[in-house]
Amino acid sequence: MAERRPPLHGVRVLDLTRFVAGPYCTMLLADQGADVVKVEPFGGEDTRALDVKLDGVSTYFLRFNRSKKSICVDLKHAEGRGVLERLVRSADVLVENFRPGVLERLGFGWPRLRELNPRLIYATITGFGHSPSPYRDRAAFTPIVEGVAGTVIYRNEDEPPTITGYPVGDIFPASLAAGAIGMALYRRTHDNEGARIDMAMYDAMVSMNERAVGMAGMVGRDFLPGRASDLGSAPSGVFQASDGFLSISVVGDRIWERFCAAIERPDWTEDERLATGPGRAAHFQDVIKPGMETWLAARTRGEAVERLSEAGVPAAEVARPLEILDAPQARARDMIIEYRAAENGVTAKVVGNPIRFEGEEKLEPGDAPVLGQHTVEVLREWAELGDEEIDALLAAPAIRQAGRS
Amino acid sequence: MAERRPPLHGVRVLDLTRFVAGPYCTMLLADQGADVVKVEPFGGEDTRALDVKLDGVSTYFLRFNRSKKSICVDLKHAEGRGVLERLVRSADVLVENFRPGVLERLGFGWPRLRELNPRLIYATITGFGHSPSPYRDRAAFTPIVEGVAGTVIYRNEDEPPTITGYPVGDIFPASLAAGAIGMALYRRTHDNEGARIDMAMYDAMVSMNERAVGMAGMVGRDFLPGRASDLGSAPSGVFQASDGFLSISVVGDRIWERFCAAIERPDWTEDERLATGPGRAAHFQDVIKPGMETWLAARTRGEAVERLSEAGVPAAEVARPLEILDAPQARARDMIIEYRAAENGVTAKVVGNPIRFEGEEKLEPGDAPVLGQHTVEVLREWAELGDEEIDALLAAPAIRQAGRS
Repeated sequence: MAERRPPLHGVRVLDLTRFVAGPYCTMLLADQGADVVKVEPFGGEDTRALDVKLDGVSTYFLRFNRSKKSICVDLKHAEGRGVLERLVRSADVLVENFRPGVLERLGFGWPRLRELNPRLIYATITGFGHSPSPYRDRAAFTPIVEGVAGTVIYRNEDEPPTITGYPVGDIFPASLAAGAIGMALYRRTHDNEGARIDMAMYDAMVSMNERAVGMAGMVGRDFLPGRASDLGSAPSGVFQASDGFLSISVVGDRIWERFCAAIERPDWTEDERLATGPGRAAHFQDVIKPGMETWLAARTRGEAVERLSEAGVPAAEVARPLEILDAPQARARDMIIEYRAAENGVTAKVVGNPIRFEGEEKLEPGDAPVLGQHTVEVLREWAELGDEEIDALLAAPAIRQAGRS
Repeated sequence: MAERRPPLHGVRVLDLTRFVAGPYCTMLLADQGADVVKVEPFGGEDTRALDVKLDGVSTYFLRFNRSKKSICVDLKHAEGRGVLERLVRSADVLVENFRPGVLERLGFGWPRLRELNPRLIYATITGFGHSPSPYRDRAAFTPIVEGVAGTVIYRNEDEPPTITGYPVGDIFPASLAAGAIGMALYRRTHDNEGARIDMAMYDAMVSMNERAVGMAGMVGRDFLPGRASDLGSAPSGVFQASDGFLSISVVGDRIWERFCAAIERPDWTEDERLATGPGRAAHFQDVIKPGMETWLAARTRGEAVERLSEAGVPAAEVARPLEILDAPQARARDMIIEYRAAENGVTAKVVGNPIRFEGEEKLEPGDAPVLGQHTVEVLREWAELGDEEIDALLAAPAIRQAGRS
């Protein structure tokens, strides 16, 4: 099967996304072989100007834009909108994460998009969805969505919860949208019709919060994410050894017994309060945690992980970001990749493609594009415009091609 | 489009999953119309016996098993394995989340599965993947994977990081696997061939940790998830008002100016240290946080959200799980659903389907099945066995049908 085509080979994705949720979604599609064309305004997608630079190129942009083409179109310009119309007709998929209403105001609401291309699969990723959605017009940064969806972490009784701290509120809905696009492409092979995916970050995060919300719905009380006493079992989480952190997960009575032996607390197996998972969760703070801390303080994280693992207790060293870059596991799984910014040839080291098909090589990542690098190419191949038409658009100026004045 | 078929209508999913990651994946497929058959051992899938009960039915099981059929097969029994062979021949998709090696030892490694059904799309969800994978045989509870992938939250300098607190290490890879299945189904319409998806929770969580790992790779230092000083901007996160919590997200200079006005600190807009996003992140702890706390302590969360929102600063009340059950937004989006356990008719209130197609009704959730409720039905329809063959299997006993001795 060496030369098998990747799953999304030949699928044309028109990418009007920016920041995180949209670009992560289209990156998943590009990683599976889709032909992704990023439509950027004359100033470039917002993230090109943000965050720390790597030899002048935005690290923010480099996190999400491998293997994409860039075309630079001014959608405020009537002829720019005409270009977008042609691209919509030629695309299989359109993804955008503007606020609700923005694309409509440009003249590209869903009825119009369907009219232009009845086979189009259109995914719109927003904070709270289009319709129905009482919160439709609210700002939708990930901390806001996480707060409203309740996926905040309640660590201790006496302090506020915290947001997750990595952009799960963008990335999780992005993965669901990419999956929904795959499913809609599959259905289209049966009935030759497109679809509109109304992906809300809020919906995704309520689903992510399924344990807390479902338990509230079924048991009638709050089970707070991260609160040890609300877990089904304990200890489970991150702990401090003499030189760093490790995670430990004691699930079930058998592992509990091994754990007590490993940390030299055989007396705990006789303690009635600790005989069940919920009992151990209830007495985590007052009994288990202090005992564990004493044992861990006398050991390095490596020693503790070794001792626990030998005893059959799930445990692992917590990896810091720099450590992951060189972790044998990350390397073996191709989860750390290097690729090029077309702008100046600088090499970016970022996370790789998490979807692996056995017996098929992961695709080599293509360059992160210069703004407008592929304008002419895409207008020829997708929009089927001739040189004269393209020159007129460049003169208008409704489009820009990198390297041409 | 009222009566359009759902995206995965007619797709047969053979579901050998248990606990969270596998069942969440197949729930996403069932929510899109796939015909999901859960293959359970004689004792039932593990979660049927775990966690808090709702009128005798496991809430753990009810979180993930709506709209699925159950067939009860003893795979330790040769004739039970014969039944599985017939089901594999009849299926489009097989999903399992055993440890690597378990299915092989039962005689269902990938070469055999392909031989039985070259069109089969086989997704295996494990902690660290099958091959290549140095950590292949490690236990893979979500806290362990989160630790190794570094998606732990560093809140304060002087305390250990914490795990996320909701099962993102299961649910995120599950969503990627469901998406990969959709993409593989799409490809199969072109080349009529199956695929094997080697989904590792680790790979998913390294991808989820893309900011910290990518920044480490590009900038050469650790950006720790959750550490305010490592964000591109501040304040952003959860804060305490007089009666509860709210989340606030101040991104960009314009929102910062509005924020300073709203909380009556116009002097901050003159403070050079706070003039840029990174400057505000660096001085969050010593300058911004104490000032915010003073302002928030004199207001309820409702008052604070109202004042900030009026000023154009993204803010929202943090919802507790019980509050989400009745939130107008959750209700409007069908994100809280009620459905039945077939066992005793009890109603479970859980989170709904996060993938919404515009103009198409979300599917009504079907019952959570009794163990072995559909054994005979599935053996007739999928395996095309006659009554005599089925009776022989029941007598063996290689299978069980609920309600029959």
